[in-house]
Formats: sequence, structure tokens, C-alpha cells
Amino acid sequence: MPLVSAALLAIACGQAHAQSSVTIFGVADIGYVHTSANGTAGSVSRSQLASDGNTSSRLGFRGTEDLRGGMKAGFWLEGALAIDQPGSLTLQRRSTVELSGSFGEVRLGRDYVPTFTNLTVAYHPFGTNGVGNAGQLFYPVAAGGTTSSTHVRSNNGINYFSPNVAGYQANVMYAFGEHLSNEGATKQNDTYVGGRVSYANGPLNLSAATGKTKFATGDYTQSNFAANYQLGAAKLMYLWGENKVGVTKTTSNLVGVQYKVSGTGEVRAAYTDLKAVGVANDATQMTVGYVHNLSKRTALYTNYSVVDNKGTGKQFVVGGGDKTTVAGGNTTGYEFGVRHSF
Amino acid sequence: MPLVSAALLAIACGQAHAQSSVTIFGVADIGYVHTSANGTAGSVSRSQLASDGNTSSRLGFRGTEDLRGGMKAGFWLEGALAIDQPGSLTLQRRSTVELSGSFGEVRLGRDYVPTFTNLTVAYHPFGTNGVGNAGQLFYPVAAGGTTSSTHVRSNNGINYFSPNVAGYQANVMYAFGEHLSNEGATKQNDTYVGGRVSYANGPLNLSAATGKTKFATGDYTQSNFAANYQLGAAKLMYLWGENKVGVTKTTSNLVGVQYKVSGTGEVRAAYTDLKAVGVANDATQMTVGYVHNLSKRTALYTNYSVVDNKGTGKQFVVGGGDKTTVAGGNTTGYEFGVRHSF
Amino acid sequence: MPLVSAALLAIACGQAHAQSSVTIFGVADIGYVHTSANGTAGSVSRSQLASDGNTSSRLGFRGTEDLRGGMKAGFWLEGALAIDQPGSLTLQRRSTVELSGSFGEVRLGRDYVPTFTNLTVAYHPFGTNGVGNAGQLFYPVAAGGTTSSTHVRSNNGINYFSPNVAGYQANVMYAFGEHLSNEGATKQNDTYVGGRVSYANGPLNLSAATGKTKFATGDYTQSNFAANYQLGAAKLMYLWGENKVGVTKTTSNLVGVQYKVSGTGEVRAAYTDLKAVGVANDATQMTVGYVHNLSKRTALYTNYSVVDNKGTGKQFVVGGGDKTTVAGGNTTGYEFGVRHSF
Repeated sequence: MPLVSAALLAIACGQAHAQSSVTIFGVADIGYVHTSANGTAGSVSRSQLASDGNTSSRLGFRGTEDLRGGMKAGFWLEGALAIDQPGSLTLQRRSTVELSGSFGEVRLGRDYVPTFTNLTVAYHPFGTNGVGNAGQLFYPVAAGGTTSSTHVRSNNGINYFSPNVAGYQANVMYAFGEHLSNEGATKQNDTYVGGRVSYANGPLNLSAATGKTKFATGDYTQSNFAANYQLGAAKLMYLWGENKVGVTKTTSNLVGVQYKVSGTGEVRAAYTDLKAVGVANDATQMTVGYVHNLSKRTALYTNYSVVDNKGTGKQFVVGGGDKTTVAGGNTTGYEFGVRHSF
Repeated sequence: MPLVSAALLAIACGQAHAQSSVTIFGVADIGYVHTSANGTAGSVSRSQLASDGNTSSRLGFRGTEDLRGGMKAGFWLEGALAIDQPGSLTLQRRSTVELSGSFGEVRLGRDYVPTFTNLTVAYHPFGTNGVGNAGQLFYPVAAGGTTSSTHVRSNNGINYFSPNVAGYQANVMYAFGEHLSNEGATKQNDTYVGGRVSYANGPLNLSAATGKTKFATGDYTQSNFAANYQLGAAKLMYLWGENKVGVTKTTSNLVGVQYKVSGTGEVRAAYTDLKAVGVANDATQMTVGYVHNLSKRTALYTNYSVVDNKGTGKQFVVGGGDKTTVAGGNTTGYEFGVRHSF
Repeated sequence: MPLVSAALLAIACGQAHAQSSVTIFGVADIGYVHTSANGTAGSVSRSQLASDGNTSSRLGFRGTEDLRGGMKAGFWLEGALAIDQPGSLTLQRRSTVELSGSFGEVRLGRDYVPTFTNLTVAYHPFGTNGVGNAGQLFYPVAAGGTTSSTHVRSNNGINYFSPNVAGYQANVMYAFGEHLSNEGATKQNDTYVGGRVSYANGPLNLSAATGKTKFATGDYTQSNFAANYQLGAAKLMYLWGENKVGVTKTTSNLVGVQYKVSGTGEVRAAYTDLKAVGVANDATQMTVGYVHNLSKRTALYTNYSVVDNKGTGKQFVVGGGDKTTVAGGNTTGYEFGVRHSF
């Protein structure tokens, strides 16, 4: 058995790692989804294979470098995958250069806006995935000519994360709209500013965030507040969210739980109530689900969700797969799938 | 010379591999291709650099994970490359999540249909590459409004492969069309079901497959049967294939050989006869080629092929490069190139 | 502390590297850019985050294999990145298969044309990046229906590089236009031929290149000559370039310097004078900049540039970010950013 020198090790491990330690990572999540709707035009359903019932599928490349004085530089390039019907690899999930140190971290490029963090699976039982995903009742409804492109991420952003101080952590982001100075009414379109503050103390987590994007047709403002408490095996969750698009508004309140069972499983449940002003309609969503971990990296899951539209707008539907043409009335969805991380 | 601990090893080899062993793989194949045609409008030719004369160029990412009880989970993401005039990396060659074990393997996502296996280089002297590629006379001809999108792969598929039992192996695939239940005549469009059974016993290989895709304008059905026999340095090959598109039909019979010479080379030859009913025209194709392996991963190759169209349809051409505008009559092509696998 | 065998090492380092040593590499460069113009329609400005102020952002995959007799085979796949507003990963920076040995190197596919080498940062103080990039006054101006697609790279190319012999090195490239032989006047469009010869002797570097692309609307010819001399910490640079598009012509002369300071920094300055015949207008560009290396892989940078258009054409602008709508008159730009290589 020969001994191996560090030099030989570097050669054996390949030039890429010796140079720069690029990490390839990702998630591949796919399952069966059935959605149905009872609308004014009768009832309709669809059976699909669809991606992302548990976690958003992705392929990414990232790395960091130690600089002098405890500083680090890094990059992060990440694109979404549609495992069921793949297309181009488009690096729009995240594309940043980072500098970090004792002052915190600055990221330049395309990244999540601060308010999105409160809609992830750390603060919402299902995060923004599957039939019960947070996007259904916590994302904005287009109104008055304004369709938000910044409720999840923004291009052209300067994103600052503070260090964690006694449980407090802050995040502030500014993004350029990049219009010409003489463009007129739309010259500030897409300009974004937002922030988030969180506090963690033992079993308790609190997080509040807000952000505004300028649009000549009516600004878009998103605000939310999340609180959760770990009570034994149960993580009790509360989430409030508000989207203002021009003069319209939707406000949602969620109560939910993630409950660990038998070492490898997690039961999830959520109930959301949405009130709409000047757009769409009131609605509620109820979702239950179960995640069974086969390993740290692989899980089976199943979810069931119902959206009940109040009034005549009939605007909201369950998530999962191709939602656009399952329109109107109350909608129901269920799914079972497999999520593999790498 | 320092000794290296397993922990240090993991650090030195990079986070990606310690976490998940992502394998990057691919093929880069490019060469010179000359095609010419003698048609009703005179003769025409074209000189090109083109990809894929020997093997389809690709870039892919894959990995597997051992689960409990002999099970494995895995993912496979693979896109085509055009080395000569590259475009977006589009992961449409294969995009699947897999679960495997003693029961066989299930793949979910976009994958090859079972019938395609019988057109690969294991069953056709040239596979589906280069001037003599199987696609020319074994792929369907669009007819009656139906253009097949499933004669190679299908989106939204559940693909099952049995274990090998005494030389027998089976493959069954179902793919969702994903239309709304009230869509009308086209609601089953793109729904695919197919299967393949193969038998291997020493020098003998047999493989039969069939598959059907629903289309309101006329279903598409592909069937084929392959037999080959290893006789010393020669692999003798027979392939039958039939494509029904609506009420039309093309049927092809091939005899061919792959003959190993001098340890590093392989001579290939194929003769195909196609009969057409209700579409296109009868045709024959004759191809000879040679592959010279510079190593396990790199080869030089050359191919020569002639397609002879019978009757007035003049529909079929040799493969290789940009075929679409070399139309009509009999066509001839030759190429020489280099294929590098990684 | 256990000892590690070579076999265990191969397993630990992952299948990809054991098989084929694929190297993942790239650059992520992003910064703040402000551009302004004083034109006939008044003055206008724009603030942006933009990529590539110092070096073109990219993600690539490459590898080589040793063959018998000192030969090597390899592949190179590289796509551009827009860190600020990412899109599809499109492998159009370079896509080649290579064979190399004592005879030199042959690359097949999409690659840089020989004349482009003389516009890179080895021969121009700022290369083709940032507000002062060489592309502004050294790239062709579209005229008479001809818009060059080959002043940086060409598809479908055969690119030969000689070995270095006593300081002399040569590069010749031919690229196929790939049109049908009976296409008429445009049948040679996009056909490219070009070459470059360089000589290096101690502090002195000389490089001359020329290339022509056929277009029915008027051929495009680019020629350039670069000379630079390392004088202590200063690299003194001279560059001449000429673009003929049909009957029009632009000719540029640059003097510049790259001056190393304090071990980690480099001051850069350039002055370019452009003369135009039959198209656009005469112009000058003056740029100064500074690069501060935080490490071998990471640098901060800042640049300032002014383009002064003579006459009424007002055609030229500083580089950096979204230039297309900052039109007319004299333009000014400044930027500061971070470049991270991996």
C-alpha cells in the first residue's frame, strides 16, 4: 500500500479542484400530480409528471476562495431544472459574486429578495413547492398593468447580509432598474429596495421583511412576518403576508406545522386565509403532506391541497405542474414524488 | 512525504465529491462532411464542419446514492452539443431521477423510448450518427398532420427496466400527454406507451420493441426487431423496422456488419431497403465506414453513404450536417472526423 | 491516521476525475457602471450593475487525454455569463475538439479568429472589457448590408497553431460558410480565412494578423498589428487596426501602458485615434484604470473612459453595460467592480 503525498493527491484529484474547488450541486425532484377544478364551465382535471413537488430542481456551480485578513471571495451560479420536460439551462435561480468577512457578506448580481426568505420551507410548512406551495396565496396578483418580476428574485442587485449578533441578523438589498435618465414616467421601473430582520433564540424564530419595486403603472410592495416555535417534535408556524400592487392588495394569514415522526418522516399541514381588496377574490387553502426520508439526500413525499375561492373572481388554484389551464372555481390537487439532492 | 488521513483527503478532493460524487461526462465529435444530391432541379452540394459523425456530442451530469436495503437513487442530466456551431445547453437528451434495486430500475422524466434502443450502434452498424445514420430510413415520415416527437425520446415518462433474468431483459415506458380532461379530440395527444424485450445468449442477441403515441390527426406506431450474431471478429446484424403514421407506413430491412481489424479498427457496412405506403417513396441506402481508435476515448472515423430514392417522392437523403436544403433525387455523402469522449 | 492507497484515492476523488479529468473553470466579473452622453437630443445617463468590466464572465468545461507518440486529444466547451442578469448557458465562447503534438495544435469547431488575439489584454491595455474596451474603436461598423459575425469568433472553423520556433509562432484559420453550391450570390457568405504571426524576444512582442470573411453585400476584412515592450514595471503598447466593410473603412491607432505598482496593483492607460472613410465618423477614446489584486484569482478594479466623436456621425460610445440606448455625441463612462476567477 503506497503512501500518498500531498502533491500526488492534488494531481490525482484533478486540476479543477487543485485550482479552485468548484462545487457542483443540485436537486432533481419529480412526481405524479393530479389537479382538478370545479368552475363555472364545469369540471376539468389533468394528470401529469411534474417537477418540484418537494424542492425546486436545480443545477449549480459555486466556490469560495480565502483572501487575506479573514476575507473570502466566491461565486454562485444556479439554474432551474424541469426534470419532466427539460429545456435550456438558464442560470436565473442565482448568479452572484460574493465578498464576505467579519462585516458580513455582500453579493452582487441576481439573487433572492429579502421578503422571499420568509416564504421558504423554514417559515412555511411547504415552502414554494408542490400543490400546497406558498406561491399560490402569498405571491402578488397582477393589477393595473403591473406584473411583478421581483417577488422572488431581482436582477442587478446589491445584497448585504449582516453577521449574526446575539441572534439578530439583517439583510438589505438594492437593485438597479437600469433605465435611461430621460426615459420619462418609466425611468424608475424595476428599481427595488428591501430589507429583512430576523431573531432566533432557542426554539423561537421571528422574521420580518418588506420590499418595494417601482413601476409607473403602480408600485409593487411586499411585506411579511413569520414566527415559529419548536415544541418537541413539532415546529409551529405562523406567517402573515401582504402584497400591494398599485391600489390593490392581498393579505394572507397562515397557521401550520412541521411534525417529525419516527426519525425519518415529517408530517406537514397548513391553513391559509387570503383577503383581497380591489383585485381577485378572497380564498382559503388547506394542505396536508408527508415526507419520508430514504436518506439525507433522497426522500419520497406526498401532498394534498384544496383551494376554496370566495366570490366570483375564482382566481386562485393549487400549485403543482401546469396550472395555467386548470382555471376557475375550487381546485384540488394531490401528488406523490421523489426528491434527490446532490 | 507526509501521510494523508481520510479526513484530509475529503477536504483536498473538494466539497462536491465528498458530498455527492457528481460525474461530469460527455462526447465531442466533429468532422468534415460533404453531401451532394442529383434532383429534378439539377445537382447541388455542400461542404461543412458538422458534429456527430460517429457519436452524438453531449455534456452531462449524473450521480448515484446508495440507500438502505440494496436500493440506489440517482439522477441523470444530459444535453446535446453542436461543436461546430454551438447554442444553448439544453438538457433534452436525458433528464431523469432513478430508483433501482433487485426489482430493476424506474426512471422518471425525459428518456429514450424503448424502440429507440434497437436503432443504436449496438443493433445498427452506424447507430443514429453520420451520413449513414439509422434515422434516415428508420425514423417516421410526417403525414396527415402528425409529426412524431416521440420516436427517439419522450417527456413526462415513467420508464421501467427489469433485471436481467437468464439473458432476458424487459423495458416498459408510459408517458403522460398532460392535456386537460375536457380538451376534446386532442386530449390524448402525446400519450405514449411502449415496450421492449431482449434476449442475449453468448454470441446471439435478439431484441423486439414497439410503441404507440396518440395523435388526433393519426396515431404514430413504431415497431422494430433486431438480431445480431458475433462470428469471430464480425458482428453480423439484421434490423427490421416499421413506422405507421396515421394510415401511412414505411418499412425498412437492414443487413450489416461491424468487423474488428488490427486491434484498433472497425470496418462497418450496412444496406437498408425501405418500402413506403401512402407517403414518401421507396428507397435504399448503402453505407461503408471505418473507425480507427487512437485510445479508448478518442477515435478517427470516415463514412461514405448513398441513398437511392425510387419513384417521384425523392424524400430521403443521407445524414450528416445540415440536411434540410440538400433535397431531391439520389444523395451521396462522405465524412471524416474525430470523436473524443470524456 | 490511516494510510491511503492509490485505489482508495481514486474512489474518494470521484468517478469523473478517475475517468477523464474534466476541468470546470470560469470567471465571474460584476461591477457598477455609470455611462453618460451629450448628444444632439440633450444629455442622458444610466446607472447599472454590469458584467465584464475587467474580464469576460464565463463558465467552461475542458479536458485533455494523452495519446500514443506524444499526441494529445482534448475538448473545450465555454459559454458566456451575464452575472447581473443571467440567461441561458450558451457555449459560444469556444466549442472545439483539439489534437496536438510536435506539429502544433489543430482545433475544430467554434473558436477565436486570429485577428482577435491582438485585441486582448496582452496587446491592448484594457482588452475587450469595460468602459475602455477595444471593441469600441477596433471592431467593424456595419455598412452596406454587411454586419460582421466573425470579428471575434467563427463557427465551423479549422484552426491551426504552429509550435513556437525561436520566438516565432503562427496561427491560420479557415471556416466554412456552409451554403449550398447553387445558392447564387450569397453562396460564399460567412466563409472565413485568416492568419496571424507573432514574435517574442525578451521584452519585445510583435504580432500581425489579418482575416477576410466573404459577404455578397461587401466582404469584411480585418487587419491589425501590435507591438509591446516591457520596460521595467511598464509594458508599453502600440496597436494598429483596420476594418474594411464593403467599400468603407475604419482605421485605429492606440498607444497605451500597463504599469505594475506595489506588487498587487496595475495602472492602465490608453489613447486611441480612429479615422473613418465612408461610414460613421472620426473619433478618439481615452481610458485610465486601476486593477488591485486581492489574490491570484480575485481583483477589484476601476476604469474611466471618454469617447469624443468628430463630425456628425456621433457613432461611437464607451463600453460597459447596456450601451445601445446611450446614443450620440461624446460619451463618458466610469465603473468599479470585482473579478473572481475559478
